[in-house]
Amino acid sequence: MQKATEPVVSPVSSAQESRGQKPLRIALFGFGTVGSSVARILVESKPPELELTHIFNRNVARKKADWVPSSVTWSEDADAVLATDVDVVVELAGGLDTAGGWVRKALEAGKSVVTANKKLISYQGIDLERLAAARGGHIKYGAAVAGGIPVIPGLEQGLAGDRIERLEGILNGTCNFILSKMEKGEDYATVLAEAQKKGYAEADPTEDVGGFDARAKLSILMRLALRVQVNPDEIVPTPITAITPVDFSYARDLGCTIRQVARARRNNGDLAAAVGPMLVDLRSPMAWSQGTENMVIAGGHYAGDVVFSGHGAGGHPTAVAVVSDLLALAHGSRRVEIPSAPAKIGTEFDVAHYIRFLVRDKPGIVAAITVGLAEEHINIRAIVQKPGYPADALPFVVTVEPCKSSALRRALAKVNEMDCMISPPLDLQMLE
Amino acid sequence: MQKATEPVVSPVSSAQESRGQKPLRIALFGFGTVGSSVARILVESKPPELELTHIFNRNVARKKADWVPSSVTWSEDADAVLATDVDVVVELAGGLDTAGGWVRKALEAGKSVVTANKKLISYQGIDLERLAAARGGHIKYGAAVAGGIPVIPGLEQGLAGDRIERLEGILNGTCNFILSKMEKGEDYATVLAEAQKKGYAEADPTEDVGGFDARAKLSILMRLALRVQVNPDEIVPTPITAITPVDFSYARDLGCTIRQVARARRNNGDLAAAVGPMLVDLRSPMAWSQGTENMVIAGGHYAGDVVFSGHGAGGHPTAVAVVSDLLALAHGSRRVEIPSAPAKIGTEFDVAHYIRFLVRDKPGIVAAITVGLAEEHINIRAIVQKPGYPADALPFVVTVEPCKSSALRRALAKVNEMDCMISPPLDLQMLE
Repeated sequence: MQKATEPVVSPVSSAQESRGQKPLRIALFGFGTVGSSVARILVESKPPELELTHIFNRNVARKKADWVPSSVTWSEDADAVLATDVDVVVELAGGLDTAGGWVRKALEAGKSVVTANKKLISYQGIDLERLAAARGGHIKYGAAVAGGIPVIPGLEQGLAGDRIERLEGILNGTCNFILSKMEKGEDYATVLAEAQKKGYAEADPTEDVGGFDARAKLSILMRLALRVQVNPDEIVPTPITAITPVDFSYARDLGCTIRQVARARRNNGDLAAAVGPMLVDLRSPMAWSQGTENMVIAGGHYAGDVVFSGHGAGGHPTAVAVVSDLLALAHGSRRVEIPSAPAKIGTEFDVAHYIRFLVRDKPGIVAAITVGLAEEHINIRAIVQKPGYPADALPFVVTVEPCKSSALRRALAKVNEMDCMISPPLDLQMLE
Repeated sequence: MQKATEPVVSPVSSAQESRGQKPLRIALFGFGTVGSSVARILVESKPPELELTHIFNRNVARKKADWVPSSVTWSEDADAVLATDVDVVVELAGGLDTAGGWVRKALEAGKSVVTANKKLISYQGIDLERLAAARGGHIKYGAAVAGGIPVIPGLEQGLAGDRIERLEGILNGTCNFILSKMEKGEDYATVLAEAQKKGYAEADPTEDVGGFDARAKLSILMRLALRVQVNPDEIVPTPITAITPVDFSYARDLGCTIRQVARARRNNGDLAAAVGPMLVDLRSPMAWSQGTENMVIAGGHYAGDVVFSGHGAGGHPTAVAVVSDLLALAHGSRRVEIPSAPAKIGTEFDVAHYIRFLVRDKPGIVAAITVGLAEEHINIRAIVQKPGYPADALPFVVTVEPCKSSALRRALAKVNEMDCMISPPLDLQMLE
């Protein structure tokens, strides 16, 4: 057994030498969970290419950490930091307006930007890249989607040679935590409270459980993988809040579990995207994803399916993506600019569905439903009614063969008019 | 539903414009499975950044394909092609001497090289990178490990900010095909014959089943992930040929299956690597890998485990990696030079083991084995003997708690001296 050299004391790379050993000067905007993890990695790993020079945060007195080198300038004045000679602004404050303003100012000054701001990139990524290119800087956002999993470099650098036709992702760790816990028998409210206690969910969890976070990330991946520029607002997400333990029980009988999935595909030039809870086969990669893990599957015309999985959120994994982007900048690694064009998003998937009804039982309900589906030429795969539920609030499930989403919506709208329906039918895509 | 623009007709990128629209001129060395797939993708996708100008192969008359544009020059004279003004040589011939000579000549002339040659990179990668840097070219080898799975870009561009401490990979599709078929009840010889018929295995399968292919790939990943420069010959692989259906049966009783795993880890500065058949938990990612699929797990200090999986071999997946490397070169995406230092490889893992004995049964065998293990302070976890095997060729299994590999080797060497042993004990690591 021999000693291996630790990376942190490794010799300086030749790229570093060719830049005359001048490290990139870095200003950190935001010293929360991710920001402090970035500082921690820089302090511990001491990459010679990178020098943390400034930290901007509100209320510096409360934030200031004694393990940060005294050479770092702490500031509550964003403009003052932007006016310095830092080379890169690392934006970790999040949000569109204020943070977006800092990013623009930095790029306009010819600085580069590294950000984890999925919202900013999903709405303004193209513009910001153009601005960066015009002023000689760069913007990198590997941390904006799936944190510590190198999906964005993988798509840009490793799969650019393919023509990707399908994307499926578990992109929101909060939803995955909640659903993979519910899979084991807990109810939504209990698990949400636990997620909030652990810091995985906000006091107002709408952004996560409503699917808004996942759709922003999906729209970023769609640009790199499907090469389309889309407006994330065109993806109408389905919240996970309607999922009950009954659904997990029925899903298991069907050999499935439930995950919040963000998916998009191109088919003969038609584009479709959806975000929401979906049934996934227990033997499929999606079902392996537990807790706050993320996963992305890119289905390529030439290379077939590539799966990336790991820790998609949290301070350290996200900070790894940020520091990796900083190292890439220091080494002159340019983005492979994947060409993309504006496109409108449709909602038409040709996919099997799980439909869970909750009814006051009476004769003729199944007959009415099957007639309603038949009128739209939708084939029923299975009708499952498990025993043990009360007749005045009876859940049962119908699964249907792959059909047009629009036809199913019409059929269910009609079925929902029946006065025995306690709640609208819960309609979930079944990924196969 | 709306039309999405196809990527192949997308607008030229700004990097392309800034290079004055002059595409990279590409010479393909080798027009076999991968080479013809590379040409196929370039012809079908028509990336404006890339222009295929030359194809070198022996016996052009037999190889020449009518779907390759007539503007491409076919040649049987490697030196003549190297003497042209091509910008990039794509080396897909494989092997060390002849192909290595072409790569050196190309780099010495200041050209860049894209290669899928794992052997060349595992033995000479560092030298070739130095040569490229000295002459102003670049060498990229994303296709050398795990074909269509972007592990190398993922490590270089997305995980450079982490400190990776552990690597586990299924890096040889032939072995994975054989073992995942044997898992379903077939025997080694039958499956090997099928793999040879399907073109997954060579007539002499030693390079694959003996673990030599996987160790070359592991050594490449070790440089990028563990940041060590190692001699692949120091990794002594265990062939998969000793695995029998009996082992799959016992593995299943232990909640496991068997895969050829390439693994390396750093622990307090000690480095260890191993390649061979190992027991993997049926609930772990490794067990999901079926057929010719590949998988790599990188365990980072900060980001935790990241899993990459997909099609690791075959013409199209490997060609995607080649074309992606070409696009990266065209866009000026430089490698993130991950510093590394020479290191010696040890074999000491602290890991549980599965040991399968094959004996002529007689009283006292288990007693002798347990005494032998106890003398080396190795704790037994389980002793399993399934019914239904003949007493004159009786297989049974002992599993032991994590222990030093060296101590186990000593104990088994002593046990193997017993004259009831029909073959040496089969000793496999159990990954947990």
